[in-house]
Amino acid sequence: MGLRVFGSVSLEYISSGVFTFVLFIGSTRTSTIPSISIAGASPEATLYTPALDAEYLVLGRPLTFNIIPVTPDGIPTPALLSRAALSLTGLPVLIVDTGSFIKPKVPYVSLPSSTVGEVISSGRALPEGTSARLYSEARLLGSMLGGHLDFIIGESIPGGTTTAMAIMEALGFNARGRVSSSSPYNPHSIKGRVVDEGLRSAGITKPEDDVFKVNDSVGDPLHISIAGFISGALERGSKIILAGGTQMCSVLAILRKLKVDTRGNLIVATTRWILEDKTADMQGLLSEISKKTPLVAANIDFKDSPYTGLRKYEEGYVKEGVGAGGLIVFSLIKGHSMDTVKNTIYREYERLASYGVNI
Amino acid sequence: MGLRVFGSVSLEYISSGVFTFVLFIGSTRTSTIPSISIAGASPEATLYTPALDAEYLVLGRPLTFNIIPVTPDGIPTPALLSRAALSLTGLPVLIVDTGSFIKPKVPYVSLPSSTVGEVISSGRALPEGTSARLYSEARLLGSMLGGHLDFIIGESIPGGTTTAMAIMEALGFNARGRVSSSSPYNPHSIKGRVVDEGLRSAGITKPEDDVFKVNDSVGDPLHISIAGFISGALERGSKIILAGGTQMCSVLAILRKLKVDTRGNLIVATTRWILEDKTADMQGLLSEISKKTPLVAANIDFKDSPYTGLRKYEEGYVKEGVGAGGLIVFSLIKGHSMDTVKNTIYREYERLASYGVNI
Repeated sequence: MGLRVFGSVSLEYISSGVFTFVLFIGSTRTSTIPSISIAGASPEATLYTPALDAEYLVLGRPLTFNIIPVTPDGIPTPALLSRAALSLTGLPVLIVDTGSFIKPKVPYVSLPSSTVGEVISSGRALPEGTSARLYSEARLLGSMLGGHLDFIIGESIPGGTTTAMAIMEALGFNARGRVSSSSPYNPHSIKGRVVDEGLRSAGITKPEDDVFKVNDSVGDPLHISIAGFISGALERGSKIILAGGTQMCSVLAILRKLKVDTRGNLIVATTRWILEDKTADMQGLLSEISKKTPLVAANIDFKDSPYTGLRKYEEGYVKEGVGAGGLIVFSLIKGHSMDTVKNTIYREYERLASYGVNI
Repeated sequence: MGLRVFGSVSLEYISSGVFTFVLFIGSTRTSTIPSISIAGASPEATLYTPALDAEYLVLGRPLTFNIIPVTPDGIPTPALLSRAALSLTGLPVLIVDTGSFIKPKVPYVSLPSSTVGEVISSGRALPEGTSARLYSEARLLGSMLGGHLDFIIGESIPGGTTTAMAIMEALGFNARGRVSSSSPYNPHSIKGRVVDEGLRSAGITKPEDDVFKVNDSVGDPLHISIAGFISGALERGSKIILAGGTQMCSVLAILRKLKVDTRGNLIVATTRWILEDKTADMQGLLSEISKKTPLVAANIDFKDSPYTGLRKYEEGYVKEGVGAGGLIVFSLIKGHSMDTVKNTIYREYERLASYGVNI
């Protein structure tokens, strides 16, 4: 059905879940370092992407500005794929703000300690104690909602692969050169420099086992919150589809250090473009951090897309984000054909042309 | 099974739902008018009750202050009953803030236009345009979450029967002397005076069909938001259990004026104490506003309670709130016996004695 499956996972087990899509949004000023992120039309614009993603995902149009998040070349946000997939499955959607630079003008859950992350090269990404509080608040949310409900968890945080790399490196995993990027020109050397400077500034010696210290120093508000949410929801018996690329491995790294058992109730779901990203190593990273976590990828391609903006995915642009891969995987498992999924995406792209995205 | 059912309702239809409990919280300064509300230890304390209710419901203890909301006599919040019932069914819980005077220190959904309501005798309960925005924002939330999920909707807003009366009266329904109270000494004359003054100050002539104008003038942030949420969720095909007493009739009055069809997918669920309240007229009010809406009441009594604070329910104190009636009804429909429900409440009361509630 267009899936690539690694590890032991029952599609029936997933299909029988009562899933809600939970989109975590957050900002780190790391995304404003030139060349780090193309998840926005300019380095400054990346700060607006999470709120605009949330608004567009829910409403089909952004509210804060009349702008769909695009790369500097005008390729639209992966939320386009997510929105198309959601229209097929009709999943409930909840937005959780962990520290978005601007707040979306749609209803969202606010974590009391939500805050924008600083540039991680400072070694002071978050005010001391914030990470532990975010984890605990998100954990409570996961436990409030968990049990009868299951969750597909997506993210929107430009700069997220860089902060994820820092988290994983600090915790003692080998993430150097292995995280992906929304650009085909993965800026590994800049990412490495920023991460190294952050670790040095914070005085962290690898491996540092205190995840909260690591995250306060070189992390961001989002990944620690997702880890907390998962911990609370798993404890209630929920199933989790962690929908994202290499950066979601930092969530698993945090959970592993905190000894949260995810076995049997969590899978990672992403896109073919992440798997095939020659500038990254999704499978290697996942296998190092959480060997037994199954990985499912939507075997989607846009080779036959009538739109340049989507054909660019085949050149390594965008690839994943806003839960796109996991939501497409879920649509396929629910019986929608790959043709239906792709045509729904193409129709949504066509609709978006009116916003000036790159056709 | 301990239920009193009025109207045509299939318990199997309810039992097959995938319910989440959504607690709407909000404040109106109307609750600070002396003698209007005993949903707090003092008129000023009523402003803190919604946030403390939310914290206690979710955590089993309040966070903002180490105080459980009580009446001036020390009888605890009905959230005690809600929490006990939730512990039996394990339902997911979501808090929605429509304008709580203080914000709960647990995760909640914030409506962008949330605001504390003013004293309604001013005729300016909310800034102009707020009601339409709250309705629309809550409607979006209902539509984001609705479809696969169903909802039990509860409220915490001291002074809510007074604002509800004003809304219903302004819309042309006869609510005078028919709304209930958390006190056995229902202050109808004070309520009537406050409502009349509000209508006069706002220059409203009954019936006024513009629900948003009515609510901006003499309403509150909560009931209009619940109406919006229901409208969005019903459109997606959700089932709704409106869990509360006479004030929930104001939600139905708003929906009726906005021509939202609730038939077949909405029931009201409450407690025996509301049905038997001689100072109010739940059935008459519901029948006038929404004749075909089924009403289900938990036939619960605390006559054999070992605790004074609960035996006071039999004298007409508290009666309902924080979704207590609907959550007990749901527990009974899910197969828990009345004895189990009552014993769970008694155990929770015992646990709370450590907070100095009235034993």
